[in-house]
Amino acid sequence: MRQVRDTTRALSVGIVGFGQIARVQHVPALAATPGLRLAAIANPVPLQGAPDVPVYASLAEMLQHEPELDAVALCTPPQIRYGLARQALDAGRHVLLEKPPAATPAEIADLAAHADRLGLTLFTAWHSLFSAAVDQAREILAARGVSGMRLEWKEDHHKWHPGVDWFWQPGGMGAFDSAINAYSILVAVMPEPVFVRSARMVIPDGAHTPMSAQVEYATPSTLNGGGTGFTSDHAWDQLTGETWTIDWTLRDGAHLVLERGGARLLLDGELLVEAQDEEYPRLYARFDTLLRSGRSDVEIRPLQLVADAFMLASRVPGAAVRS
Amino acid sequence: MRQVRDTTRALSVGIVGFGQIARVQHVPALAATPGLRLAAIANPVPLQGAPDVPVYASLAEMLQHEPELDAVALCTPPQIRYGLARQALDAGRHVLLEKPPAATPAEIADLAAHADRLGLTLFTAWHSLFSAAVDQAREILAARGVSGMRLEWKEDHHKWHPGVDWFWQPGGMGAFDSAINAYSILVAVMPEPVFVRSARMVIPDGAHTPMSAQVEYATPSTLNGGGTGFTSDHAWDQLTGETWTIDWTLRDGAHLVLERGGARLLLDGELLVEAQDEEYPRLYARFDTLLRSGRSDVEIRPLQLVADAFMLASRVPGAAVRS
Repeated sequence: MRQVRDTTRALSVGIVGFGQIARVQHVPALAATPGLRLAAIANPVPLQGAPDVPVYASLAEMLQHEPELDAVALCTPPQIRYGLARQALDAGRHVLLEKPPAATPAEIADLAAHADRLGLTLFTAWHSLFSAAVDQAREILAARGVSGMRLEWKEDHHKWHPGVDWFWQPGGMGAFDSAINAYSILVAVMPEPVFVRSARMVIPDGAHTPMSAQVEYATPSTLNGGGTGFTSDHAWDQLTGETWTIDWTLRDGAHLVLERGGARLLLDGELLVEAQDEEYPRLYARFDTLLRSGRSDVEIRPLQLVADAFMLASRVPGAAVRS
Repeated sequence: MRQVRDTTRALSVGIVGFGQIARVQHVPALAATPGLRLAAIANPVPLQGAPDVPVYASLAEMLQHEPELDAVALCTPPQIRYGLARQALDAGRHVLLEKPPAATPAEIADLAAHADRLGLTLFTAWHSLFSAAVDQAREILAARGVSGMRLEWKEDHHKWHPGVDWFWQPGGMGAFDSAINAYSILVAVMPEPVFVRSARMVIPDGAHTPMSAQVEYATPSTLNGGGTGFTSDHAWDQLTGETWTIDWTLRDGAHLVLERGGARLLLDGELLVEAQDEEYPRLYARFDTLLRSGRSDVEIRPLQLVADAFMLASRVPGAAVRS
């Protein structure tokens, strides 16, 4: 068991899986976090233009050659994160899991229990939670109550994940890889639980996961027909910019609208928050705090909503994914 | 809040949803349980040949006219159980949920929290857990360890659910409505967690849920290739009798085989347990104990395995369901 005792030194973090999200978000966010430093990288294929730190072919090699490493950030595809996380925890390292944290809710629950047994920090890094307007949205929803919701999360997968095709394989989640960002906000800000009641998914020819989906939800207090309904609309083939919006109807009839993925908040049209994206720096500041206080932060429910939607969905065929 | 204080009187139970499972299993099991008595029935359509108790058109009517009712057993299709359970709990009644307990794992978790807040008993009645050989299987697996598993759960849906078609609608689960019985045993007897890693489902033309499926699992200790593999094979179109078998490879190479859905247990071919079906009488004895001790018994993981399989599955088309 590795306890962070010397609270003055910078803690060393190794990144596992050096794809786009690691390069574009994790490296600069680590550099912006005074308490943390990037110490090593593990990636199965050689890298060009990587930061000036040791690069290993696997997590196992990194753990073996970097005995002082405090933590690892797992940025691989989610299908293999569970095994890597167990490996890192068993080697006494704290673990940050990129989203989605693992392949299934059951895997996350087991990792949480395992980290707890070992006295190590586990952090499910739902980055959208750290967008600027989330905290204020939560406060307003709690104070004024919610009677309905329209969630729209639409983008172009070619723009945001160029050349990536594992999204269309079983477990890849398709458009829900993006929608789960909305769900991470949703479960954090809603004053009561939200349940999937039905879903409709459009599955491209040859794919196993949806290009688009509509989902209907219930909450305990709207279950018997109260409120204006809770729905979401997801698409990964919207070519004209991004729509990352949640529009809540409050009990008093007002509309609270979270836009730009959580960076902008409006109440009945009045702008309350508008900020630049600072998600990953805030996320790593949180990880630093967790490491130094010996705590974990594990949230399973966003992935649970996705699994529940897949179980309850009707599926219709769609056109093949354009390459 | 309704506390069971007088431990000598028989507690009254109302059955909601008076279909085959209620008639064939719940009514005789209640009659065989000295501490409980059937006090009322709620069913949306009139009944013929029902027991001589008041019959109401809805749970709401039953709750209104039976103020002394202690508990309700929800035997409706699972899609509507969550709302009915909230209604019964909010009216101060204890709740037994037939399997599967609700439409999604998230719904069960919320019901558990709600019953706990209200000080009421919630019982997820996984009947297969009460088959005769389950306890001994658990003891042997714990003592000798598990390195592999082949689970086969195959039957004819026409025989076991004649004329029922909601199984093929979204959320109906198809063959997993039966497989979940195996899962309820599995999570109870396995010495470590079992995770879905991949699944293949055959979806009949016009249906939304599988006629058959194969699933692969991992456990923490076999994740990196150890053991002989954990697999299951489910079918709802097996016309030649039932196969309800779990075959475990123990660490010492022996085979522990649970047959007949949990009523028969063999260790390397030697018969250890062979019993008649006593599932529902034992299940209601457990409910009686829970009610009189003010406790709940809630198990979510069987449905979680199903949801995870649906999320990770590849799907292939199959022939339409024979009517």
